[in-house]
Amino acid sequence: MEDWRATYRLLTHCKHIFHGRSSPNFHNSKRFCSSGRRYHFNQPSEPINPYIGHYQQEFQTYKQPSLSLGINQWYRCRSQYRCFASQATIIQRRPDFSTISSEDVSYFKKILGERGVVQDEETLDAVNMDWMRKYKGTSKLMLQPRSAAEVSQILKYCSSRSLSVVPQGGNTGLVGGSVPAFDEVIVNTSHMNKIISFDKVSGILVCEAGCILENLIAFLDNQGFVMPLDLGAKGSCQIGGNVSTNAGGLRLLRYGSLHGSVLGLEVVLANGTVLDMLGTLRKDNTGYDLKHLFIGSEGSLGIVTKVSILTPPKLSSVNVCFLACSDYASCLKLLLDAKRKLGEILSAFEFLDHDAMDLVLKHLEGVRNPFPSAMHNFYVLIETTGSSESYDREKLDAFLLHSMENGLISDGVVAQDITQASSCWHIREGIPEALMKAGGVYKYDLSIPVEKLYDLVEEMRVRLDASAKVIAYGHLGDGNLHLNISTPQYDDNILSQIEPFVYEWTSKHKGSISAEHGLGLMKANKIHYSKSPETVQLMASIKKLLDPNGILNPYKVLPPSLFSKAEIYTE
Amino acid sequence: MEDWRATYRLLTHCKHIFHGRSSPNFHNSKRFCSSGRRYHFNQPSEPINPYIGHYQQEFQTYKQPSLSLGINQWYRCRSQYRCFASQATIIQRRPDFSTISSEDVSYFKKILGERGVVQDEETLDAVNMDWMRKYKGTSKLMLQPRSAAEVSQILKYCSSRSLSVVPQGGNTGLVGGSVPAFDEVIVNTSHMNKIISFDKVSGILVCEAGCILENLIAFLDNQGFVMPLDLGAKGSCQIGGNVSTNAGGLRLLRYGSLHGSVLGLEVVLANGTVLDMLGTLRKDNTGYDLKHLFIGSEGSLGIVTKVSILTPPKLSSVNVCFLACSDYASCLKLLLDAKRKLGEILSAFEFLDHDAMDLVLKHLEGVRNPFPSAMHNFYVLIETTGSSESYDREKLDAFLLHSMENGLISDGVVAQDITQASSCWHIREGIPEALMKAGGVYKYDLSIPVEKLYDLVEEMRVRLDASAKVIAYGHLGDGNLHLNISTPQYDDNILSQIEPFVYEWTSKHKGSISAEHGLGLMKANKIHYSKSPETVQLMASIKKLLDPNGILNPYKVLPPSLFSKAEIYTE
Repeated sequence: MEDWRATYRLLTHCKHIFHGRSSPNFHNSKRFCSSGRRYHFNQPSEPINPYIGHYQQEFQTYKQPSLSLGINQWYRCRSQYRCFASQATIIQRRPDFSTISSEDVSYFKKILGERGVVQDEETLDAVNMDWMRKYKGTSKLMLQPRSAAEVSQILKYCSSRSLSVVPQGGNTGLVGGSVPAFDEVIVNTSHMNKIISFDKVSGILVCEAGCILENLIAFLDNQGFVMPLDLGAKGSCQIGGNVSTNAGGLRLLRYGSLHGSVLGLEVVLANGTVLDMLGTLRKDNTGYDLKHLFIGSEGSLGIVTKVSILTPPKLSSVNVCFLACSDYASCLKLLLDAKRKLGEILSAFEFLDHDAMDLVLKHLEGVRNPFPSAMHNFYVLIETTGSSESYDREKLDAFLLHSMENGLISDGVVAQDITQASSCWHIREGIPEALMKAGGVYKYDLSIPVEKLYDLVEEMRVRLDASAKVIAYGHLGDGNLHLNISTPQYDDNILSQIEPFVYEWTSKHKGSISAEHGLGLMKANKIHYSKSPETVQLMASIKKLLDPNGILNPYKVLPPSLFSKAEIYTE
Repeated sequence: MEDWRATYRLLTHCKHIFHGRSSPNFHNSKRFCSSGRRYHFNQPSEPINPYIGHYQQEFQTYKQPSLSLGINQWYRCRSQYRCFASQATIIQRRPDFSTISSEDVSYFKKILGERGVVQDEETLDAVNMDWMRKYKGTSKLMLQPRSAAEVSQILKYCSSRSLSVVPQGGNTGLVGGSVPAFDEVIVNTSHMNKIISFDKVSGILVCEAGCILENLIAFLDNQGFVMPLDLGAKGSCQIGGNVSTNAGGLRLLRYGSLHGSVLGLEVVLANGTVLDMLGTLRKDNTGYDLKHLFIGSEGSLGIVTKVSILTPPKLSSVNVCFLACSDYASCLKLLLDAKRKLGEILSAFEFLDHDAMDLVLKHLEGVRNPFPSAMHNFYVLIETTGSSESYDREKLDAFLLHSMENGLISDGVVAQDITQASSCWHIREGIPEALMKAGGVYKYDLSIPVEKLYDLVEEMRVRLDASAKVIAYGHLGDGNLHLNISTPQYDDNILSQIEPFVYEWTSKHKGSISAEHGLGLMKANKIHYSKSPETVQLMASIKKLLDPNGILNPYKVLPPSLFSKAEIYTE
């Protein structure tokens, strides 16, 4: 129940943001170099989740004769808008997995009590489906353990019975990683939601995996600290899931990835072994640092039950500016300068191109162009976060003056209060909603070396000609491009022009086909675009070592064909 | 040859620093709150390596009848000063390893050429011994490959022949990890020392493993960037070795560990497989992030051949202050305040106690007490690094004023130029040299949760009473205590009072018995003090998966008893 409510709370929450936002305007924005009062505000407290409401899909689960031995259940997902443009894939349920029996349910009730075993259809319907309504499983059982010991008992039993398992936190993932593909037992972590300790001197937080990110952010805020991680789904997502997917989010540019800030984990392996790696030390060079195996392995190597994380102190001063550049080269020079001149206070460097701005202005209510007199080729949003209001602002002003003098910026505004800052963020964060309103969309979340990042956009425009609009935006500071192809309606011919070209191009330029969302069910078979065969083979060997029966989150992350008992067919 | 010269270059370099330093004084240091000119200087460019010259040891390598099957060579290390206080350990050469034959040498000459195969005794003497002269092997062969392909050929051959291998970079490690325990083939990475690429926009450096850290620092300095890693041995240590030991160093407080800043690796596995994980992306969530397995595994899982690393932009303003506190609680409050008030510019927070200061003043030439009128219980060194000289200094001044008003600081000086800053650092960095001059020393490098860190020091003082001096200093900002017991001369009874108590205490308080130096040969059998049995077992399983014959850096990191073909005996 908890999880279901969590998912829908998020949906409601985000709709409210979409529709309830006051119309931002820039009438009182401060142009550069003019003197004026200093201001002080926090980062927008409710970033829009860009993935809400963009998906209109149709699901079909049915029985079909198997082409091989075993159980005959098949799973098909058709999408009207092929979001993230994954080709439809049909996978076969692994015949060696058992199905749930009444004895199994009795056993789980014995160890978890009635409250920890969920079988009612309404709840199961909710937790079988991801929040985008793109993936749907047919699990008949959700378990809600309250401790690592209970998780251990569950997995030990599932291993012995060959029952497959899907770990589930807030179920806010974007690649089908947290819902069953078939009838896996859902092990939901929502009831493990205690904060265990917080060390105010070192800033080290230890908590259970089911803590909702927003609750941790609020807890730390009271203590004068911040989570090094923030993202749109914070109202529902859980820290265990964040760690398991190595979530990126809005603060990565400043505070780095979870591989840097997570200090320790407690993880339960497929055989029930509880792996205590819950260190609270910044430095510990005693043997292999195994926790990193579980950061970003999407629950396929073990279930994270506790997390220890280093949190930075909260800084009081935030500034936001919105700038126009005439070409991509200027954006890159601006990024280089911002890193050097703003250095320690730079906290976001986002970009969008002309077509993205045009789309937002056309389709999103309440957005005004900060520079109404002319359209520019590129726009950059820069945010600083520091400890000194006046000094930070003066630093930013000096940087902007220098950039204008050097011709890197064509125009720009600096937000004077939180409303104006929200307006700037609204343009950047409103793009996904605008894309949805514009018609069909083919979405790609790519990491590409930053010098080459925009080449793909230009090549795609040449390739698609007038048949589609190519929209580019993203976290330029992290080299993360959100590439979107917008068409009035979905068209298979367009998709065939985009794929596999976009993956091949990304691969050729040593990019990543999943910058921050993981592979899950959606891209398990596409891993070879970003990882060498030897590396994928070693991943499979490690999976087999830690989970010999493959019961943990099967069919995901790695190509099922690597595991002998699985077979895969693609349309 | 290259490696030998590198080692001795470091020795010479450091002696020069020890003896050639001008007498620092504080006559012109600025007391707080007085107004005065602002200054600007860089971090001391030649940090003293604290491990030079403290070791007077005696080695003995001899033959003894084996207690089991196989070859009879034994290895014993006796130390006059039991540095890091490891109990002497005798390990037996693994009988299943082959010995080098003339055919082997011919093969290696064929693939590497004459220049890549080193057999002359003088060079071998140098590379068989660590730079502390604490560990000594008997290898008859050093190979110097020039590419990953050559490393691959070497390892493939060694695997097929059961020849054991020790990877060696600058040979500056402190736990015997980079020298042979017996007759392992030394695979030295010094000839792989090219910088491959540097992306000035993203700050991503790609280079070969044999690049000397100081060369990378100099290269980046010219580009306006800094390595996120700096340490005393930078003149000799190589980036491949730094990564393999997960080196900590002076910049960890600011830039985090190598798990955060290393973006990609190329690694050769024991069977010769070249694992290309050399990504240059900040974000890449495609499968398990395997590079972390090789960061800190001390060459026992694979040989790092290339490194991709994220480097921050160089910041121009550095400030150093030296403060006195009356108690440890004040030091902790000061740390908390510094993190919040200096926030983004805080780059070092070091501490030493009364006894450490007393020792330095007694035994080190050219050191003057910044506060000659009185001794204090604790001293703290704070360094800031930022992009704005004037603002950073004003921030620091405001912080210091606030701290004095709150009674956290008893006294303090702010360095006015680089000489004064060096004087401050000299006190902190001179402690190891002072300890060496004072007599015997038992050294421990520990991570302990910061609130409890000094409890160990106090308990140790009670335990040892007047028989020894307990000296405490370290990287308080990282929770890293360098605990040193100083006695006029070495005494077995003292050691028995310290060990295993110090390890047990550290273990009880969830600390680490090796904060930044690794386990190597010295502490392989002590891993259980910091890691759970299940975690150690999984490490051993991963070692067996990646290196089934155990040829890579045998006897190290993990207890040899975990591997069936090895046996171990402890005195």
